[in-house]
Amino acid sequence: MKNILIIGCGLIGSSVLRAVHAHRVSKNIYIYEKSKKNISIIKKLKISCKVINKLKNISVNFDLVIFCTPMSQYSNFISKINKFNTNKTIVTDVGSTKELSSKKVKKQLNKNITWIPSHPIAGSEVSGAEYGDKDLFKNKWCILIKEKDIDKTHLSRLKSFWKKLGSKVIMMNSKQHDAIFSITSHLPHLIAYNLVKTATDFEKGKKYNLIKFSAGGLRDFSRIAASNEIMWRDIFFSNQKNIISAINLFIKNLKAFKKDISVKNNNQIIKKLINTKKVRKKILLLKQDINKPDFGRF
Amino acid sequence: MKNILIIGCGLIGSSVLRAVHAHRVSKNIYIYEKSKKNISIIKKLKISCKVINKLKNISVNFDLVIFCTPMSQYSNFISKINKFNTNKTIVTDVGSTKELSSKKVKKQLNKNITWIPSHPIAGSEVSGAEYGDKDLFKNKWCILIKEKDIDKTHLSRLKSFWKKLGSKVIMMNSKQHDAIFSITSHLPHLIAYNLVKTATDFEKGKKYNLIKFSAGGLRDFSRIAASNEIMWRDIFFSNQKNIISAINLFIKNLKAFKKDISVKNNNQIIKKLINTKKVRKKILLLKQDINKPDFGRF
Repeated sequence: MKNILIIGCGLIGSSVLRAVHAHRVSKNIYIYEKSKKNISIIKKLKISCKVINKLKNISVNFDLVIFCTPMSQYSNFISKINKFNTNKTIVTDVGSTKELSSKKVKKQLNKNITWIPSHPIAGSEVSGAEYGDKDLFKNKWCILIKEKDIDKTHLSRLKSFWKKLGSKVIMMNSKQHDAIFSITSHLPHLIAYNLVKTATDFEKGKKYNLIKFSAGGLRDFSRIAASNEIMWRDIFFSNQKNIISAINLFIKNLKAFKKDISVKNNNQIIKKLINTKKVRKKILLLKQDINKPDFGRF
Repeated sequence: MKNILIIGCGLIGSSVLRAVHAHRVSKNIYIYEKSKKNISIIKKLKISCKVINKLKNISVNFDLVIFCTPMSQYSNFISKINKFNTNKTIVTDVGSTKELSSKKVKKQLNKNITWIPSHPIAGSEVSGAEYGDKDLFKNKWCILIKEKDIDKTHLSRLKSFWKKLGSKVIMMNSKQHDAIFSITSHLPHLIAYNLVKTATDFEKGKKYNLIKFSAGGLRDFSRIAASNEIMWRDIFFSNQKNIISAINLFIKNLKAFKKDISVKNNNQIIKKLINTKKVRKKILLLKQDINKPDFGRF
């Protein structure tokens, strides 16, 4: 690639920047970032890249434009990038939901510009350029959204881009993506938020100081409950339908579990507890987590 | 101490053994363990201790007897230890719930023997002597249950025992203990089990292979959902009342959150997400977790 534009340089955007630089994926790197803090961190990296202050009056032919901002901000940029992009440009993103955001982007984006959404499964609870890492995408999944009308040359170029950054690339459509991640990511996050809220509600009600005993389990949940609120608000709102189904299925299971406890249904409880153990084993086998007790924390 | 008896030498029991040995807390260490695997692991440690095969016909005056088995097994040992313990003996345990298990023990245990329950907050998702660690209790909380009629000399001896193992000791009554841990530990565990179950239910229904994308959040929960099923069945059944209240409070919060998503209540969602972030900060400040993104996994 000759020219790449990264819009938004927080955790993910600055990791893309570092990885593109480390693997020499593009001759020129342009970044657009409003936060002075992020810009000052990026400047210290001494990576040769051009910081763009305004998306107006740009006369570069970009091979790739990548949105690394919260999804609710995409629409701010599209009318601007419409002006300088051509049919050679691929526009992509790193957002966590695909169906609704894609629909919105397609509506705004010039028809001759190719839009292929990406989702690297590589976030964490921290935000900001200071946490960026050139190896953030290494050996992680990156989902590319492949709809029926896709331009195969551009798809293959985007696939090759993520592979150069170290990702394992997999394709699916946006409907399938949003259903899968409503369960593996969105539900766990909202459960974590609600569990922490339940603990603070209880603490207020009983006046017990319980956070100091969070090592018994709560602390695991508090990690993902510390994730960026704007990003997660956008996810919850844009994957509303799947998430509501996931909550309903979860509440159904929780009520059945509550009944098993209240009637002391030994067989059911033991069966459920053993089955979930098998899933952990599968997760470790698939190298989706490290195989050390307690995450190797201590 | 002169003589200590550890009943059950899995993760916790074998850690007590290692720590008692490392800190020279007792002149003689006796262990009672049925699992041949655990015994063979312990023998390899070359710690001087005596393995007891039968709790009958013992003529040792124990200073401390510590139950490190699942709570449902305590009653199997009590009639036996009644025979050789005296008013100098403290009997304790490491179980995760206190009110019901204590009531049961008190009923069976000879009146002249002192029973003071302990709860070191130091478990993990793994079981078995091979995971034991002499430093497992270091800088971790250990709760001692202090009821009104407690023998203060024995309480202070038990406190000193846990301190020698590196624990920070704190006292509370069993009612308070069971309420606090229903929220900080029991609810998170059962939520984790149910979240993993929900994922497998969804996978079966939709025929999507989703476990391989568990890095988006699910994997955090799968860790504690992999904990020992007998231990957790005992916890759920013996802290039934508090746990059911905790589930009800959680479902109430979850339904409110679902409503916030379905009506796109921006202010409420942002407020909730920001508040839970503060709790994570508190947990890190209280050194209840390590302050590294992603638990420092990679």
